[in-house]
This record gives sequence, C-alpha cells and structure tokens, in this order.
Amino acid sequence: MPPTDAANPDTGGPCLSLRRVAIDTYRENVAYLHRDCDVYRAEGFQALSKVEVRANGQRILATLNVVEDPRIVQPHELGLSIDAFEHMGVDNGHPASIWQAEPPESIAALHRKINGERLGREDFHAIVRDIAGHRYSKIELSAFVVATNRGELDREEVYFLTEAMIASGRRVDWHERLVVDKHCIGGIPGNRTSMLVVPMVAAHGMVCPKTSSRAITSPAGTADTMEVLAEVELPFDRLMAIVREHRACLAWGGTAHLSPADDVLIAVERPLSLDSPGQMVASILSKKVAAGSTHLVLDIPIGPSAKVRSMPEAQRLRRLFEYVAGRLGLSLDVVITDGRQPIGQGIGPVLEARDVMRVLENHPQAPQDLRQKSLRLAGRLLECDPDVRGGDGYAIARDILDSGRALQKMQAIMAAQGQKPFDHHHPPLAPLSFEVLAEQDGVVTGIDNLQLARVARLAGAPKVASAGVDLAFKLGDTVARGQPLYRVYAAYPADLEFARQCCQRASGYTLGEAQDMPHVFVEF
Amino acid sequence: MPPTDAANPDTGGPCLSLRRVAIDTYRENVAYLHRDCDVYRAEGFQALSKVEVRANGQRILATLNVVEDPRIVQPHELGLSIDAFEHMGVDNGHPASIWQAEPPESIAALHRKINGERLGREDFHAIVRDIAGHRYSKIELSAFVVATNRGELDREEVYFLTEAMIASGRRVDWHERLVVDKHCIGGIPGNRTSMLVVPMVAAHGMVCPKTSSRAITSPAGTADTMEVLAEVELPFDRLMAIVREHRACLAWGGTAHLSPADDVLIAVERPLSLDSPGQMVASILSKKVAAGSTHLVLDIPIGPSAKVRSMPEAQRLRRLFEYVAGRLGLSLDVVITDGRQPIGQGIGPVLEARDVMRVLENHPQAPQDLRQKSLRLAGRLLECDPDVRGGDGYAIARDILDSGRALQKMQAIMAAQGQKPFDHHHPPLAPLSFEVLAEQDGVVTGIDNLQLARVARLAGAPKVASAGVDLAFKLGDTVARGQPLYRVYAAYPADLEFARQCCQRASGYTLGEAQDMPHVFVEF
Repeated sequence: MPPTDAANPDTGGPCLSLRRVAIDTYRENVAYLHRDCDVYRAEGFQALSKVEVRANGQRILATLNVVEDPRIVQPHELGLSIDAFEHMGVDNGHPASIWQAEPPESIAALHRKINGERLGREDFHAIVRDIAGHRYSKIELSAFVVATNRGELDREEVYFLTEAMIASGRRVDWHERLVVDKHCIGGIPGNRTSMLVVPMVAAHGMVCPKTSSRAITSPAGTADTMEVLAEVELPFDRLMAIVREHRACLAWGGTAHLSPADDVLIAVERPLSLDSPGQMVASILSKKVAAGSTHLVLDIPIGPSAKVRSMPEAQRLRRLFEYVAGRLGLSLDVVITDGRQPIGQGIGPVLEARDVMRVLENHPQAPQDLRQKSLRLAGRLLECDPDVRGGDGYAIARDILDSGRALQKMQAIMAAQGQKPFDHHHPPLAPLSFEVLAEQDGVVTGIDNLQLARVARLAGAPKVASAGVDLAFKLGDTVARGQPLYRVYAAYPADLEFARQCCQRASGYTLGEAQDMPHVFVEF
Repeated sequence: MPPTDAANPDTGGPCLSLRRVAIDTYRENVAYLHRDCDVYRAEGFQALSKVEVRANGQRILATLNVVEDPRIVQPHELGLSIDAFEHMGVDNGHPASIWQAEPPESIAALHRKINGERLGREDFHAIVRDIAGHRYSKIELSAFVVATNRGELDREEVYFLTEAMIASGRRVDWHERLVVDKHCIGGIPGNRTSMLVVPMVAAHGMVCPKTSSRAITSPAGTADTMEVLAEVELPFDRLMAIVREHRACLAWGGTAHLSPADDVLIAVERPLSLDSPGQMVASILSKKVAAGSTHLVLDIPIGPSAKVRSMPEAQRLRRLFEYVAGRLGLSLDVVITDGRQPIGQGIGPVLEARDVMRVLENHPQAPQDLRQKSLRLAGRLLECDPDVRGGDGYAIARDILDSGRALQKMQAIMAAQGQKPFDHHHPPLAPLSFEVLAEQDGVVTGIDNLQLARVARLAGAPKVASAGVDLAFKLGDTVARGQPLYRVYAAYPADLEFARQCCQRASGYTLGEAQDMPHVFVEF
C-alpha cells in the first residue's frame, strides 16, 4: 500500500499500513514507527508515555519505538508487536493511524490518592475501569499500587476497590444456592490442596467451579499443575457445561474475564513484591465473587518465610477479609495454617501433579502433610452444607478420599476437560538434575519457602513443567552429613547452572537441634 | 560467528553473538532474543522485569523481548536496542551472555520507604547509587517517586536525598570564591531569563557557569533555546575553558554528568506529573551544588496555572529549599515571582531566542516583562558580590543591559560555544501556521500556562525549534472579537492538526472584565 496523507475512512487520521512485527513484548503493546515516517514526525510522539493506535474500529494504547531499519518497518508502515497486532484482528497492510493518547480520565483521582487523600466509590470505579481498559502505563500502575499500599486504604476503600474490580469484568451466576470455593493467599511451594479439595467436595455433590491463575513469580500455580493432567484453557461455555455435569472444574481463569483489572495490577505488584493486605483482599475476593462463589474457605499460612509471619498479622488480615466479604454478601471461613515449610514433596508442575495423584490413590508414598491439610480444608468446606453438622466435615472428607470417590471425581473432571497422558508412577521429569547434600548432621529446623521456590523457578518451573525440586526431608527429620536434602530437575543446561548457583548461595535448609524448630500455633 | 555453548572468556557465561537492532526504545534498554535461541530458554527470562547483559566487560540491565523473525535476530544472536548497543562499545558479532538480574541491593530500603518508614543517610545513598547505575526498573523508579512524594519525606530526608544525588555524579570545583547561578522551578512558558541574567552578571565579572536541561514536557528549555543561537552540547573540558575565559557559559548539562540519578528519576516523574517539594528541592539543589555553585537565586513563580498556586505553599517550599541549601553550605536567595501567565511573547525555541535577542539589543519590540524580570533577578544575583550594596543590584544590571555590555558578553559566549546563524529580525519560523481568534470583546483576565505549553508542544516544540506559539496579547490587554490572540507555527501537517484540535478544545485565554483579573502579591 502506498503512503497517503489522505484521511483514512476507518480512523479519520492520516494513514499508515499496519504490519506485524514478530517481537513478543510481554504484556506491553509496542508500536514501531520508522524514523523517516512519511506521515508522522516520529520524535514528536516519543517523549510521550503512550500513543493511541487506531485500526479496524479498535483503539489500543502502545509505547512507541522508533525504527531505523526498513526490514523491521518501512516509512509508510506502522508496526505492532505480536499481541498488539493480534488484538487489532486485521491482516498486514490494513490502514491504521496514530494519535496522541489522552491521559486516562481517572488520573486526577490517582493523584489525589498519591497525595494521601481518601477516595470514594466513584473514584475507585473510574480508576479500575481505566486499568482494566489498559489505559494506565506501567509507571501509572506502579504509582497506584504504591499509593494504595499498606495502611493507605481504609477498610471501606478496600471494599470499594473490590467492588470496582468485580464490576470491571464478567460476573457469573450459577443459579445455585451454594457455590463453594477454597483459596490460599499463596507463598507456600507445593501447596496444591485445591486439586484434592475440589474433587472431594464435588464428590459430596457441592458445586465448586474452581478457576485458578498460572504462576507469575512462584514455581507453579494450580493451573500449571492441573495442566500436566488435563487441558486447562477452556472456552468459558465449555467450562460451564463441565460444571453443570460434574459439579466442578479445575481450569485456568484467564479465559473467563473475571476481575480483569486484577490481572493487570498483578503484572506490576509481583515485580515489586508488593502484596499489601488491601490489594490482596481486593484481588482474591473480586475473583471469587465474579466467579459466582457464595461460600469461601480461605487458607492463611503463617511461618518465618511465609507471606504472613505472625499471628497478630494473620488476625488483622482475617478481619479485613471478613469485613469486605461481609459487605459483598460472601460467606467466608478463614483458616490459619502452618506455613513453616513447603507442603508435599515436589515443587514444580510435574512433581506436584505426582504428589496430588499419590494422595488421591492413597499411595503409601503420598505426602501426609498434603493429605491432612486437604482433608481439613475440604472438611471445613463441607460444613457449609446445612446438612453437615459442625465438626463432621473432616470425617466425611476422609471417607470420600479413602473410598476412592475423590479419585473417581478427579478422573471425571480430567476426562471432561481433556485428559493428558501422565503416569505418576513414572513422572516425566526433566533430564538434567543434581542433588544438594547436607553439610552436617542434624535435625531439619528450617526450610525457606522463598529460597526453594527460587531454585525451582530458576530450574525452569513452571514454564518447563518437568523442572523443579523434589524434597527428601521435611521439618523435624534427622539428616546425616552427605545425605541429599533435595534434587533439582532442569531441562536446559543454562537453567541447571542458574539453579546450581542459587543453591550454592543458600540451600534453603537449616540443620540444628530438634528444640530449635520454630513453633506455630495454628488450627491445623 | 557460530553459536557456541562454551563458556565465554569475556563473560563467563554461554555465549551469543551481539547484534545492533536499529530500534530506538527511548531511555529503556531492550535485549532481543530469538524464541528458538540456541543457548538460552527465552521464555525463562521473560517473566523477569530485567535481565543482565554482559559483553566487553560491560554489564547492563535490559528488558527482554522475544523475537520470532530471524531478520531481526537469529537464534545464535543477542540483539540490543540502539542506545544499549552503543553503551557496550563493541561491533556486531562480539560475544555476549545473559544473566538473571539480581534485584538491586537497595530494594529492601525501598520497601521500607513504601511501608512509610523514615530512611537514613545510608539508605538514600544506596537507593540513589542503584538509580544512577540504571539498576531500577521503571516500575521500581515509579514506586520510589510515589513513596517519597508529598509529605512522605521530612526535611532531613530531603537533605539526605540531595546529598546522595550529588554523590552519584561529578562534582565540579571552580576554585573561585563566588560561583553564582540562577534557577526557576519551572512551569512558566517563555521564561528565558537565564539567557539574560547570565550575560549580565558575567559582564559584571561574576563566574556563572550555567548548565541547563533540555525540555522534557515543556515546549522549550534554556538549552533548547540557546541551541538556536550556538552549540550547547560541548565536552566538559571545553566548557571549563570557556568559563575560565568568559566567566560564563550557557550550555546543556547532559555531558557534565552532574547528579545523574536526577536524570533517571525525571524520566518517571514527568509522565506522572509528580513534582513534590522534596523531589524538586533534591533535583534542583543537587544539580547546583554538583555544578560547583556557591550562590543561587531561585525563582518561584505563583499563579493559578503555575506549579505553585498560593503564597503559603510558596513559603513552605522556600523554607524547605533554605533548610537543605543551608545544610549543603549553599547560599540561597529565594524570590517569589508573578507566574500568572507566560513571560515574553514567544513560546518555542526560535520564538524565545528572538525575544531574548530583542531584550539584549534594547529593541523597541522587546517584551518588557522578560526585560524587567531578568533585570531584577540579575540585580539580586549581583548583590551576592560583597562590593555591591543591598538595593543597588537592579540599577547596575540595568546599566549593563542598556549600555550593550550584556549583548557583548552574550555574543562572546555564543562565539566561544560555536555561533549559529540566526537573524532575530527575521526568525526562521516554521512554514505552517494558524491564528486563534478572540471569540468576544473583553480584557484578557487569564492565560493558562499549561494549555499554551501544550499547544506549543503539540505544534512540535522543542524538537522542531521553529515551531511554537507567538502571543499577541497579555493579561490586562483589551481585545476585540475576531482579533488574533496568538499564532501557532508548525513544520508538519500532522503536528499542525494536533495543535489545532487542542486550541479548539480550549484557547487557553479567558476574556472578561478588568476587575476579574487574578491578583498576585509577589516581590516582582
């Protein structure tokens, strides 16, 4: 298409020819304009944080990069990075125009929050609409996250933020009296209780449409681990059909468009390692309410390397969750659990899937901590059923698990979602590995959740499902010098090397005397 | 160069072949890795906010983009964006490696600040070192800027921050008893008093090595305007020689490496429109002290569309400047000025250069407000000379200007820096233009600094030096319906159109009755 200065019927502005630039810019739209562009003065746009690209009736905000190589874009072309081009839904050569991006409408409210003011319901709705609409730059998102961090939001503001996040996306109505879910605030590797709790409560007949996220900074999310066993990226209609038939699913939540502002915010919160109580409550409860849950059991683990490190902190968090859940009409049961170490044996999708299947099959090597925690959480959830007496839930859950009905339900869910071949007796682990050995005799008095997660992540998890860490010892175990504490699996030499360097800096294990072990007083 | 898995003697890691990717990513280092890279698992890096690239003994942090087009990078290559490649100082094909970027050391201090804690001297030094070393991502920079915003820094913390910013770069010692400078906190278009004050005080014999920034969000900085008349990008040694010979210079400060952390922070503060008192004080005073100034006159304009909008606010800001300057041993004289409207007639480099030259030549069309303000500021600066009696400065400055000695000094500075051809009787204005007409009869009761700056900027200033806005009326002038309020100049049709749309939304002028004009009570 020749360059033209004529107004473009599609967009109203001077017209360039759209071109897919095969660069994956990871969650950031980038537009590529040649320095000698025929129509626009590239430099005029570049100092701006964003430009608006219009084509085919679509408008997206993008960062502008100026190109000097006509093999990437020519002077009459406008390049778009892979995701941005896909969003436009057109072919190469489609006419497009660039506009000065107006600052998002809610920017004045953001500035008031930065200056320490309290915001009202409408302010939060305006900000969250702009965030969900991808109208905030990373810089602005980061500003919002910091300005609403610890202590900067009162509990009513957290409620407004949660409500706005629910309103930013789809809200599901299952037309059921009781729709249950469980959730953990995160931070504990291997903690795959959802994949056990969901089949147990569904086997009891409860509706439990579990949608999960993929790991962002952890070595595996429930969606990543479930993906070892079955498809998890399902169209939302199919998800609904599966839930109607089997009472449950275990799927990735990304296709459901639930609380989309949350997904945008998380992309900034995670690199900053910010997870303030207000943001955590808004993130978790908005997803649950949007997913149509009526009853939620929430797991808050405490431990020296967990997200929450003391009981007073856990209690403050519990009260905030309960306040906001109350305002939203969600029935919430918070349980405070032992978060001193990873749960189960494996860390990483394949290893965690193995642990889950062993528990479901009542295998002698099934990790007992994962089994016990899942039974107790399922028990609490079962007690949401008005026909179950308080205190009876655990025994019912155990009966469901021991009888094989949980396994049966899981197999039904896997089959419905699209089962994948996986033999947990011979899990397909990554080909490269090394062991980390105990440097002295002693009792395991500490396992650092953060360090073990880091090692598994460097080894390739969760993108490489077969990578991760397999623990040989847990808290309280006695170890002899030279015994392997854990084995690290990786698929690529560079990953193996990164993980090895990390283990050399710190194994993550502390060995000492039995009485040095940190105690936690939790419900279970 | 063939791909190789062997460790690279230069970097210690597996080796790729470096390639310049001709994409200008504007102040952000980007590394391009092919999806099927021979050595690294591209996806493994991508979730990280930064990777570290090593080559030729250099290490830089970069954002990773994954490429699917071998014309951009091949599987054995590592691409770098234009600036990043240049930084490495090597040719295409040089071996390079990628590493997981460790979080910057000071990140724990940043988190404490985000959580509202007071930081100590060492914390600020650590943070500023990491910022100046480009070890903070945009997200982290934004977090720092918001966490240290209004009210979050006490005055001693502002002092620590300023001191740390001075320590992050070069500090000049002129070996002179008296090194003077003037500075304005900004926000007033056309306010080019430096280009008049500097030659006046230098003609008196004072040392005034003025280095300025280029405009980032305004339509012209002093460096942009001076560049119309002479070279401003001079090697630092040459700058020192010019100052030794002529007592003054008017140059761009970018080559001097003064307070480099400030340049990094500004890139985030400006898109956020954040300019909190603490950050402003640290930014301005660190540059001045690093530049070796001993005496500073600081201009704080007040007005309804200025940065400072009330006298109490101006007084609070003055006290903070004075406290920090005192701790740093800098002699400071703050003057609060009339910031209700642009200064002078022209907005944009060429138009402002014309105004400056008219004042220096005592031309009948010289803008009187620019002349008067410059005389008064120069007078205050002259009174730093112990031989000048308090109150005599203005008359001395006027004598220097009226006698032509200021013009002579300016011509000497221009010649020394490398004069450019510029005829201010026939300034080379951009070829496209339009007028904005008064929609009613009335007295000009308001001129919006922000809107006029926006129009000039959209028209192309400062990148297009000949673009901008030429004002026909100022506050208090009587206008008849249909008379042109101002003329907008642009070099490109798209720019002209953007500026026209902006003027249609709001002309920036308010017409009313004489008594509606806002009053300000300022020193001059």
